Amino acid sequence: MKLQILGCYAATPRTLTNPTSQLLEIQNHVFLIDCGEGTQVQLRKQKIKFSRINHIFISHLHGDHFFGLPGLISTFRLLGREKELHVYGPKGIQEAITLLLKLGDSWTNYPLVFHELTSTKPQIILEDEKVIVLTIPLRHRVYTNGFLFKEKPAQRKLNVAAVAKYKIDKAFFQNIKNGKNITLEDGRVIDNQLLSFDPAQPKTYAYCSDTAFEPAIVAQIKNVDVLYHESTFLDIDSELSVKTQHATAKEAAAIAKAATVGMLILGHYSTRYKSIESFREEALEVFDKVVLADDGKIFEF
Amino acid sequence: MKLQILGCYAATPRTLTNPTSQLLEIQNHVFLIDCGEGTQVQLRKQKIKFSRINHIFISHLHGDHFFGLPGLISTFRLLGREKELHVYGPKGIQEAITLLLKLGDSWTNYPLVFHELTSTKPQIILEDEKVIVLTIPLRHRVYTNGFLFKEKPAQRKLNVAAVAKYKIDKAFFQNIKNGKNITLEDGRVIDNQLLSFDPAQPKTYAYCSDTAFEPAIVAQIKNVDVLYHESTFLDIDSELSVKTQHATAKEAAAIAKAATVGMLILGHYSTRYKSIESFREEALEVFDKVVLADDGKIFEF
Repeated sequence: MKLQILGCYAATPRTLTNPTSQLLEIQNHVFLIDCGEGTQVQLRKQKIKFSRINHIFISHLHGDHFFGLPGLISTFRLLGREKELHVYGPKGIQEAITLLLKLGDSWTNYPLVFHELTSTKPQIILEDEKVIVLTIPLRHRVYTNGFLFKEKPAQRKLNVAAVAKYKIDKAFFQNIKNGKNITLEDGRVIDNQLLSFDPAQPKTYAYCSDTAFEPAIVAQIKNVDVLYHESTFLDIDSELSVKTQHATAKEAAAIAKAATVGMLILGHYSTRYKSIESFREEALEVFDKVVLADDGKIFEF
Repeated sequence: MKLQILGCYAATPRTLTNPTSQLLEIQNHVFLIDCGEGTQVQLRKQKIKFSRINHIFISHLHGDHFFGLPGLISTFRLLGREKELHVYGPKGIQEAITLLLKLGDSWTNYPLVFHELTSTKPQIILEDEKVIVLTIPLRHRVYTNGFLFKEKPAQRKLNVAAVAKYKIDKAFFQNIKNGKNITLEDGRVIDNQLLSFDPAQPKTYAYCSDTAFEPAIVAQIKNVDVLYHESTFLDIDSELSVKTQHATAKEAAAIAKAATVGMLILGHYSTRYKSIESFREEALEVFDKVVLADDGKIFEF
């Protein structure tokens, strides 16, 4: 998996910082997660091929997470897109985008498919042979979901030397990859472990923004490889974080610790602080595997 | 007057070019004209005080002219704005903005006043003691207005030496500034021309974007000091300009010439051309006072 941060600052776009948007490459997919104003310019800066994006996930309908979506949808049209584009987001997103396109008499000439979300329980919103995407219900001022991206377990890898040794016909290879034992012509049963290697561990990524401190999510994100958890404020401003239903770096770390995640990425920083390094320092007091998101940064895992 | 180009390129925002937006300083006002995606970032780059903007004029509801408006309106709220904000634009703009704010449950805490336009004839949309703003009906794929910004004639300037010579009491000064003749106590009538100087000539600015070649606008913009007229294409692509209801540089110059304007500013360039200099060269063949808009450029007149 490859995670590219396009923007990770709270509130309004500034000259040098961008509102929330991320690009997740997972298996055969390139997923766009949230789409603040200016996301299409960030995509160009990062030299992302627009045509690779077929699925956009919107956490909630605050401007800093979706005001870049109408422009991106229009740009896809100008670029001559023909492929379906799937947009997942809270109920209302279809009405908003449809109205904006209607006012400009600028309908897309590609199929635009909305998947509107209303459930307050985790649900599967996308699944194919290789990946599965679930919502993570969050607690914020408006209806908000995080997203849990999971690779499915890959097939076992064929042990080429072993199958040669036992003279196994290739007609059985798929069974071996599927984990089956093999019965030879002489009746011997060869254990699958002797004929194949373990596949790479499937990876998981949990995106949680925006949200107040919400221990209820821990069960769902338990042991994920990477957790992006918003940390709009530092603990010193916890009153503000309660009032606005955001989290502090300390709270993000507490969630990461309880969920025993592999790595915590902090982001959605309020621009009131001089340096984002303070967020890392605060989180490190609670949990030891903390990194900072920043616009343009790439994480591979 | 001072005109600051925030963005002047057609279609989608790119890494280095911005969709349409301009800032016009005229008398006591700072007017924002159109508001493509990313305009608020451009305003910050140009170090414009957001609080100085009280009136926003939207020509039409294509994304590259107004997808920056929802974000700007939200930012005004975050900045604690209390003053009224007036938005002038085609019917539908209020529904769109209202829906977006409603979905995010993020109403403004300042009065947001919409002035929705539907007339296909020029109309006065703003007038105070010093300026008057009229619509210029344009021809485009959707309902579109340009805007004509006119300074009102200033008061005449008091000739301090002359009023001293005639010993005129200052109670009469306002009458002199208003152009009145003065009757002295001895019955003599002193002509106003002897007591005052001509004021500076009031300036006019016409903004025409987006529009097909539309000679019907010439009468209304006759003799304006500065005309901004879109030139999306060069003459070689006139078929495209007809199809998309845009204008070529040659056509913009023909309008400028027919209206005998003081200066023509070209803009809204398609990004298909390598250099915008070609637009100037083409227009100069028809009209001799041509300058090119470019992002960040400032014109004072």
